[in-house]
This record gives sequence, structure tokens and C-alpha cells, in this order.
Amino acid sequence: MTELPRTARTTPRTHSERASRELEAVHAIVDEALCCHVATSVDGSPRMAPMVHGRLGARLILHGSRSSTLMAALAAGAEVCAAFTLIDGLVLGRSAMHHSLNYRSAIVFGRAREIADFDEKSAALRVLTERVVPGRWSEVRAMSEREVHATLVVALPLDEPSAKIRSGPPLDPASDVDGPWWAGVVPLALRSSAPIPAPDLPAGIAPPASVREFERRMQRPR
Amino acid sequence: MTELPRTARTTPRTHSERASRELEAVHAIVDEALCCHVATSVDGSPRMAPMVHGRLGARLILHGSRSSTLMAALAAGAEVCAAFTLIDGLVLGRSAMHHSLNYRSAIVFGRAREIADFDEKSAALRVLTERVVPGRWSEVRAMSEREVHATLVVALPLDEPSAKIRSGPPLDPASDVDGPWWAGVVPLALRSSAPIPAPDLPAGIAPPASVREFERRMQRPR
Repeated sequence: MTELPRTARTTPRTHSERASRELEAVHAIVDEALCCHVATSVDGSPRMAPMVHGRLGARLILHGSRSSTLMAALAAGAEVCAAFTLIDGLVLGRSAMHHSLNYRSAIVFGRAREIADFDEKSAALRVLTERVVPGRWSEVRAMSEREVHATLVVALPLDEPSAKIRSGPPLDPASDVDGPWWAGVVPLALRSSAPIPAPDLPAGIAPPASVREFERRMQRPR
Repeated sequence: MTELPRTARTTPRTHSERASRELEAVHAIVDEALCCHVATSVDGSPRMAPMVHGRLGARLILHGSRSSTLMAALAAGAEVCAAFTLIDGLVLGRSAMHHSLNYRSAIVFGRAREIADFDEKSAALRVLTERVVPGRWSEVRAMSEREVHATLVVALPLDEPSAKIRSGPPLDPASDVDGPWWAGVVPLALRSSAPIPAPDLPAGIAPPASVREFERRMQRPR
């Protein structure tokens, strides 16, 4: 396990028992999340959007339109905070105070920079697809040079991250445990159902291995 | 449908065809999301955390510890951006460019204020539980005065919101449609599995109606 040094921003002030600074824990959460939330300040005001992301080693890859205010701020090197949140269950304690979620959450701070080099950008665009559906990149129509140029791609170093994980049953005070109230967890997970072919798909084209594997993986509870 | 006026921050610069300013659409997304992401600026730097939320009419309710940097900023009236994101499917086009997510997303801007009045605060704490599991509040041990006082509760008016919704199949360019590549959607939804009683639950206490109804509701695909 690679333990990262703490900074003021990544030192938890609440629920420190849930905190992790293991790089592997952060990467696992980043890799499992289908999207993240990216926040920055524009003229002192917070801006945020959900975004699809990729990971290229220790760098988070984000992409978007050049006309997006948030993407423009990211490309200009603004300070960024990105959050990755996986919900694993609803925790139902004996009192309202002890209701919670089971979750795995990672927060990353840093400054992004635009990836302009064509080959580096192509590699970054590739992981945006491949992280979620490994194998998909080589099964689809190859990206054109024009498409690569049209997209704004930025990389954010994952070197100031933190993770918080809550798992397991509710933790009620001893004075409540013998009471008449039910307590427990309802497990939750993002699950897939069967692929729906596009209405304009020509007859005879079946879902490829990458899509079938994604669906199979997402059917299983963790 | 109640159409809200647009502000500079809620006018989409990208994918305006996905945008909605209907109050009902925003409330529906807020109500279905199990958690939200809340961002603010602290000394010019973005801070963000996932939070459980409630809704009291046209106000978003958030709660947390007084020792949280983010909650302290919220209670002090800092500008806030909150995001609510529901993932509905993975969209797989014929090219990497036309991969996307189906989602329903709401973003809210504003300034929160602390709820200090005991009765108003109790009502706000109640919706934090009741929004997710209706009926649960009256089935658990009543909240003590000490517990109400210990929690910091803030309200954020939902009067500068916007929503973006993407649904349906991939939208590939006509030049790709007759190609040999599979295209379609893999539907995704947060689903429950059977409740797990707390290990310290006394024998003979069954899950109450509220918990059974939550599990039943979350089992169904949308």
C-alpha cells in the first residue's frame, strides 16, 4: 500500500475513522465510478459539473467542449476539486441520527493542464472509453484527426487525493441496541439490464465482447 | 410546468438540447438522488463533498458537523453550487466520440443559511430521513433535544437551478450508421438487494414497512 502524505485539505476534520490515504484505494474508487463531479471557482463563485473521466496512470483525464466555462477554466490551470462517489448501501440505525449511507468516496485537489500533443491526446481519449468498457476502442470506427482536434482534453495529477469509506452495519449507541427498533443495511449498487440496440442498427450486428462483458460485470452485486 | 427564468450561470453553453428549467424536473431529480455533491470556495479554492440531502418545499436541506470546513462555510452564507446526478445508462455509439451516459442532472446555485430555530430544525432533520425512506421517522427512537442541537443544519433556496437530461439511443452521424459497428444503450440503475439486519439486532424484530417499501422501490428498474 502506498500511503500518501496529508495536506491541510486532505486531513479529515470529521469521521477520520473512515479516511484512507492509500493510493490504491483512491485509484480503485476513481476506476469504478462511471462519472465524477468537477468543481472550480470562476470569479470567486463555485462552478461544478458531472463529467465522464479516464485515468492514465496517476493522471485523471477529463474532456469536453471548448465552449464550456468549466472546461475553459480547467485548461487555463484553475484550481480544481474532483469527487468520485460510489453508493454501497442505505444504513438504517435505531434513531434518525444513526442513518447514513455506505459509500466509497475520493476527493482530488490540483490544477489541470491541457493535453495538446496529438499522440498524448489520442491516448487520453482512448482511456476515456477503455476505462469503462475495456476493448471497446478497437471495436468502433477509428477516431478521425478532426475529432481529436475538436475535443478539449485536460489532465489533473492525482497527487493530492483522499478517500473516505463507510461500510458495515449501523453503529448505534449501546443505550439504543436493546430497543424495539429494526436496524440494518439495505445494500445498493449500480446495476445493468440487457443492452438495447440502437433503432437504426442494421440487422445481424450483435453486441461485441466488450459490451457483453460490461453488462455481465454490472449485473453482479459487489 | 413551472419554467424558471435563466441566469448567466444556468444558461447552458453546451448541449442546450438536453437542458430543462422546469421546476418539477429539478425537484424530481433532487428527490430521487440519494446524495448530492456540494461545492463552495474557501479562500478562493474549491472545496467539495458528497452529502445526504433533504427537500423542504423549495429549499434544499443539508446537515453536518460543526467541525466541517465546508458546513461552516455554508452556514456563514458562502456561495454554493450543489449537483444531483442520476445515471440511467451507458450510451455506446459507433465511434468513441459518440459514447456518452444517459443521465438526469440538476445543478443549483445560491447561498445557504443556518436553520437555528428548534422546530424548523426538527422539521428539516425529519425530511433528511423521510425523503429517502418515507415513514421511517416515526418508526425509530425519537431524536433527543441534545441531538438536534448537536447537528448543524442549513437550507439552500432552490431558486437558481437548472437540469440536463440525456436519454435514448446514441446519435451517430449518418455516415456511420451503415457501418459494421454495434451501437446501443446498456441501461443502468441503482438497485437494492435484501436488507441485512444489524448483527446486534435482538431476535424477532422484522424490517418495518418503510424499509420493505424502500427495498421494493429500489428493486425495480425505472
